[in-house]
Amino acid sequence: MDCSTIEERSHTLRLILLSIALLLTYGQASAECLTRGTGDLGIIIERAAGSLKVIDRSARSELFHVEGLGDLSHASAVYSRDARYAYIFGRDGGLSKVDLLCGQLVKRVVQGGNSIGGAISQDGTLIAVSNYEPGGVKIFSAETLVLVANIPATQIANNKGSKTVGLVDATDQRFVYSLFDTGEIWVVDMLDPSQPKIDKFTDVGKQPYDGLISPDGRWYIAGLFGEDGLAMLDLWHPEKGIKRILSNYGKGQQKLPVYKMPHLEGWAMAGKNAFLPAVGLHEVLVVEQDSWQERGRIKVHSQPVFVIARPDGRQVWVNFAFPDNDVIQVIDTESLKIIKTLKPGKGALHMEFSPRGEEVWISVRDRDQVQIYDTRTLEQTGSLPVDKPSGIFFTSRAHQLGL
Amino acid sequence: MDCSTIEERSHTLRLILLSIALLLTYGQASAECLTRGTGDLGIIIERAAGSLKVIDRSARSELFHVEGLGDLSHASAVYSRDARYAYIFGRDGGLSKVDLLCGQLVKRVVQGGNSIGGAISQDGTLIAVSNYEPGGVKIFSAETLVLVANIPATQIANNKGSKTVGLVDATDQRFVYSLFDTGEIWVVDMLDPSQPKIDKFTDVGKQPYDGLISPDGRWYIAGLFGEDGLAMLDLWHPEKGIKRILSNYGKGQQKLPVYKMPHLEGWAMAGKNAFLPAVGLHEVLVVEQDSWQERGRIKVHSQPVFVIARPDGRQVWVNFAFPDNDVIQVIDTESLKIIKTLKPGKGALHMEFSPRGEEVWISVRDRDQVQIYDTRTLEQTGSLPVDKPSGIFFTSRAHQLGL
Repeated sequence: MDCSTIEERSHTLRLILLSIALLLTYGQASAECLTRGTGDLGIIIERAAGSLKVIDRSARSELFHVEGLGDLSHASAVYSRDARYAYIFGRDGGLSKVDLLCGQLVKRVVQGGNSIGGAISQDGTLIAVSNYEPGGVKIFSAETLVLVANIPATQIANNKGSKTVGLVDATDQRFVYSLFDTGEIWVVDMLDPSQPKIDKFTDVGKQPYDGLISPDGRWYIAGLFGEDGLAMLDLWHPEKGIKRILSNYGKGQQKLPVYKMPHLEGWAMAGKNAFLPAVGLHEVLVVEQDSWQERGRIKVHSQPVFVIARPDGRQVWVNFAFPDNDVIQVIDTESLKIIKTLKPGKGALHMEFSPRGEEVWISVRDRDQVQIYDTRTLEQTGSLPVDKPSGIFFTSRAHQLGL
Repeated sequence: MDCSTIEERSHTLRLILLSIALLLTYGQASAECLTRGTGDLGIIIERAAGSLKVIDRSARSELFHVEGLGDLSHASAVYSRDARYAYIFGRDGGLSKVDLLCGQLVKRVVQGGNSIGGAISQDGTLIAVSNYEPGGVKIFSAETLVLVANIPATQIANNKGSKTVGLVDATDQRFVYSLFDTGEIWVVDMLDPSQPKIDKFTDVGKQPYDGLISPDGRWYIAGLFGEDGLAMLDLWHPEKGIKRILSNYGKGQQKLPVYKMPHLEGWAMAGKNAFLPAVGLHEVLVVEQDSWQERGRIKVHSQPVFVIARPDGRQVWVNFAFPDNDVIQVIDTESLKIIKTLKPGKGALHMEFSPRGEEVWISVRDRDQVQIYDTRTLEQTGSLPVDKPSGIFFTSRAHQLGL
């Protein structure tokens, strides 16, 4: 009788422990991952620490801190079409897939020795990464990060491939990029992932160092490091070949001291004009989009790095190269006048607009801070502590070509 | 001794039951709502049943079926900035908030007698609804659907307010709409929700019946039912007042039989041209965006209703008024030629493009089907069974002005 009671007790005790164990499991599952919309999420790259913050753009708060992403200098990111996963391209060739809802590094592959950005295919199934070392482009499954296609670049000395740069996604499941050492632009058609079709354009100009695609996905434009001018390809009519535009765009004959070659992603397309950072000059160039003729120059604080349009195209925001990277200037695209000069602090490296343009987030590296500005009042309305912030990427990019 | 054992048993039993109860609670919570990204979700309006389907655009599958939304003829929808909640504007004046992750009607208010669409503010905090009956615009908290501002329209006969139409959101937290009976356009500034500032433009033309805003948010254009021509307002310079454009746009002098006044939201802005459905004619008009001068006309199958641009602007897709609503035509925006005539079936009412433009979803009411087409091959690649489908709205709209 006593024994049976003891057995019973230990039995019921086991039941209780089991129930509680299960309970805890469930409890954790719902605590670890968030059930929420992903339309207003984003990531902020913590360059020095090789980590990132997952942020809630609406609450202006940090949701998760994700570590172990390797060398994130010049890191960039794209998003899955469901806006749940970020793909981060590290300088060390690392490609990392991060789950924004669970704050976890899902998978990381080191796919090259030295990489310089990537893109996601129009249908969201493929991730392409361009490499300095060993050169060439590798294409992975967005789902699994398994290698789908390896596209080596044109060979140069000692069996190395040309550096590849300026990789963007385009319509019809294409990727477009430039070959720095051999002066080429390649268009890769991935409609059949097992049979990439490559369209090669040679002699586009000396040392294409970066590229951009117009927001409508029609124009691919490569900047040239080795000479002045730009190489342009009409992706609606690749058969027409490469066209050279803005023959004065570049370092010029006197070879000005260039502290940092400006980013072409930084080009702002606003209305019928494009706004470009001049190379080595304290100027922003105004170029008519149809004719690609220069229409004017705007004197600015220093050498521009990024020239970015507010989504409605009414303003462009400009940051500058070291040692003047403590200043941001705002240009009115109608009057072409500077309407505000901001001093966010040293290392104002990156700007990201909310998709409807009411605010802009600015990384201020040396203040370990991201500052938030109202684009109507041009006043700071908030800030977030971030360890040496660089790139800021909002999930609304998931729905835009070429981002 | 025995008693104590009994007490003990009943005590342990209570513990077990409690644990299991808690366990079930957790179990349900994680079963009812989905933990997933919301970037590739959407809703399809089931007009006759007053219900909608929540769909996964990537999997092309139904996630939830939500009922009890009232009269959904001409229903439209907008999304919260986190892309979790859809706000549906019903013809019966009902405003419904639906949770896409849990498949639940969160709240429904009947805010007017007869309503005709709405908009969400730039910052995502306010929902505006325009009404036929009693006329005027009501503005609600996006969070709670509590009334924030009631803006009656200009009075007409027997204490009624003018019908309000063509409501859109604009930059700087503004809403813009037209007053049908009194021929006005109002711009409402909601920067201070407790103090709406109203800018009224009178004598804009006879009976504005619909309006649109250009994708960059700069131009508000109202169509006129009572006379030819269109009323345009430059929202960058409201002080310049209303400008009349396209003086021949409308029913014309001979008053053609018009089966359905075309929707202005249907205007396609592609490159430097806008493509407009002609009124009463079997034509699509090509208009230059800067000058707003007509540049050409494209003969089409019948009277166009919606003329919608693929996101990259390379194609416009056109559907037609009864009895020719079984046909869809695709126009190449470069050659201005019809490149395909599709026969999806009777009641091809609405088209929605994926944000990067690779596919378009078409509601085919009389086949109880939504058909999916590849915009490159122009072939059907899938379909979904839907009860009398009408409007299709993807969550990527959350990030676009004027949608």
